[in-house]
Amino acid sequence: MIYFDNAATSFPKPNIVYDSIMKVMKEYGANPGRSGHKLALKLGREIYETRELIAKLFNIDNPMNIIFSYNCTDSLNLGIKGILNKGDHVITTSMEHNSVLRPLKALEKDGIEITIVKGDSMGRINTKDIEESIKENTKLIVTTHISNLTGTIMPIEKIGEIAEKHNIYYLVDAAQSAGVYNIDVKKMHIDLLAFPGHKGLLGPQGTGALYIGDNIDLKEMKQGGTGSISHLLQQPDVNPDRYESGTPNGPGIVGLGTGIKYILDKGMDNIRRHEEELTRYFIEEVRKIDGVKVYGPLDIKEQAAVVPINIKDEDSSEISYILDEYYNIAVRPGLHCAPMAHKTIGTFEQGVVRFSFGPFNSFQEIETGIKAIREISKEV
Amino acid sequence: MIYFDNAATSFPKPNIVYDSIMKVMKEYGANPGRSGHKLALKLGREIYETRELIAKLFNIDNPMNIIFSYNCTDSLNLGIKGILNKGDHVITTSMEHNSVLRPLKALEKDGIEITIVKGDSMGRINTKDIEESIKENTKLIVTTHISNLTGTIMPIEKIGEIAEKHNIYYLVDAAQSAGVYNIDVKKMHIDLLAFPGHKGLLGPQGTGALYIGDNIDLKEMKQGGTGSISHLLQQPDVNPDRYESGTPNGPGIVGLGTGIKYILDKGMDNIRRHEEELTRYFIEEVRKIDGVKVYGPLDIKEQAAVVPINIKDEDSSEISYILDEYYNIAVRPGLHCAPMAHKTIGTFEQGVVRFSFGPFNSFQEIETGIKAIREISKEV
Repeated sequence: MIYFDNAATSFPKPNIVYDSIMKVMKEYGANPGRSGHKLALKLGREIYETRELIAKLFNIDNPMNIIFSYNCTDSLNLGIKGILNKGDHVITTSMEHNSVLRPLKALEKDGIEITIVKGDSMGRINTKDIEESIKENTKLIVTTHISNLTGTIMPIEKIGEIAEKHNIYYLVDAAQSAGVYNIDVKKMHIDLLAFPGHKGLLGPQGTGALYIGDNIDLKEMKQGGTGSISHLLQQPDVNPDRYESGTPNGPGIVGLGTGIKYILDKGMDNIRRHEEELTRYFIEEVRKIDGVKVYGPLDIKEQAAVVPINIKDEDSSEISYILDEYYNIAVRPGLHCAPMAHKTIGTFEQGVVRFSFGPFNSFQEIETGIKAIREISKEV
Repeated sequence: MIYFDNAATSFPKPNIVYDSIMKVMKEYGANPGRSGHKLALKLGREIYETRELIAKLFNIDNPMNIIFSYNCTDSLNLGIKGILNKGDHVITTSMEHNSVLRPLKALEKDGIEITIVKGDSMGRINTKDIEESIKENTKLIVTTHISNLTGTIMPIEKIGEIAEKHNIYYLVDAAQSAGVYNIDVKKMHIDLLAFPGHKGLLGPQGTGALYIGDNIDLKEMKQGGTGSISHLLQQPDVNPDRYESGTPNGPGIVGLGTGIKYILDKGMDNIRRHEEELTRYFIEEVRKIDGVKVYGPLDIKEQAAVVPINIKDEDSSEISYILDEYYNIAVRPGLHCAPMAHKTIGTFEQGVVRFSFGPFNSFQEIETGIKAIREISKEV
């Protein structure tokens, strides 16, 4: 199987990730931060080490401001709902995933006002449109870093500057960028950073996190046992405990830390450069094929390793089925949980066939993919 | 290391659990329910199989009414907050974990009324007290099945009958019972059943679930991508998608399914009987030791494999430290995220040293534990 579905989840993971998860499970799979015995403490320390690695990667001062979650959607819900109250205004974009738009739509019923800035046909957002949408009651700007549909890289540093200037919180959805593209929460004025563990960071499923900037009093969505201040029936007011009720995914978080170690060891720039080269070549070659339409900025300076295509007017699911069935190539068709982004680029009816590459894809695999598209485009 | 901290998380897991998790991760660690390719479909099918196994275990008709979550706390928050609205009354007990009491306390501020029925000094609840607490606006009864402090087995079938009779929803916290004690949602009139994957069910951390009875319109706590009805910005209204936004813990859920297969294969009754025998012997022997106080009903018909003790007036953390450091025995001291339960049995100041046994504990380990307690009790 050739796996071109890395935007959904990265696969495979580095072997050291598998090994570290197994080691935790088999040797010290206790409940971290609960009991005080050796196994629990060892796992607790390693979870803290993952916090430190994340902090290092994103230039976060305090590792305790990193909240572990179930997945990026979990993090986004916490970030969005924790900060917005009735009467607040929030600005977002038409390129967002449903993990941003659906929580916002749910909040709309509770009296929260939403402005959705529209992207252009390549999925690009004009920062001027964001700045002009700011009102007196604007409390939050939330945008993706990289579109999961078109791979479009958003100008998050510029948006961060705008947010900073107007004293508005900025929440970045780094679902497609964390672990591959540079993110510096201080330089980019990011107040809240949501990201999955199982995509670019090369950790396992069942992991995600939210960075919460200093002094942000985010409402927690859940309460429960935290292993701390246990004599009180009130949720503790300290980070990360306030937001991390119940047993965490210990082995998963250690696996996530190992994924980050792998990235730091290989060099994130090297990994990104590899993906950029694959992407550049794929875009160049596929664009030449008759009947194939490629979406996005089509320039690796503006487009990450996410490349949506269509062949003629064929349904995207049909093409993906052929790729899977006859070529053993895994891609993702349909709407990618981003209906408004599809409307933005004009593919809401047809969907797209999304190719997304990862660190373990090779040029040879890209060649095979291109060849398959060439053949299919002749036959349909 | 002798591991007597199974009430926090079971350790170790059956080898087939480790193997199944690794197999998913290495061979088909795709995003289930998202893309339509072979790897994604295979994982999707296996996740469904875990739903079926859970349904079988708890006599649930429709596997789609099982919602996967991050942990039992996550499930409890969804069950509690999804059903209660301003003006509603809820009945619970003083034996609950903070994962029940803290969400309820948080809701109190939003105008939800709480009655906490007090247990006796052995942690037992009188069902009459529950029935007498029912008011016109009582919407929910929530109780644990087994106390995480005293191991006290609650009369959930009787409570279920009361709930049924008065047309009140019944939410059971099965954190300490799922996978070991019989739970039949139909026979016991359970409307909502919250449980972790990583305790008695022998799955990995990062898994939990909530069973939602038919026709219960529970508010979802999160919205996001569900891989279904993706053209809408509204959260889908179908189970389980409504409550399962974002990428699930695929390998973890398959591991959980494998844990349940192991239990069904060994026979849950056999596993329980083994734990009962260990518990009976431990209680009998430890009670004989001078200066040792054992808590709970002290009868395996009423007490699960959770046995809290104290030695004289010694701080529970100190005793646990000695057990860990000098005897290599892992237990959990302190308040166990259940402060009100400690107040109920009179151990709020001292805490207790909690021994909790699992399927992989042996009589020899129990002997070693008893011997250690005997020695320590002589020295302190």
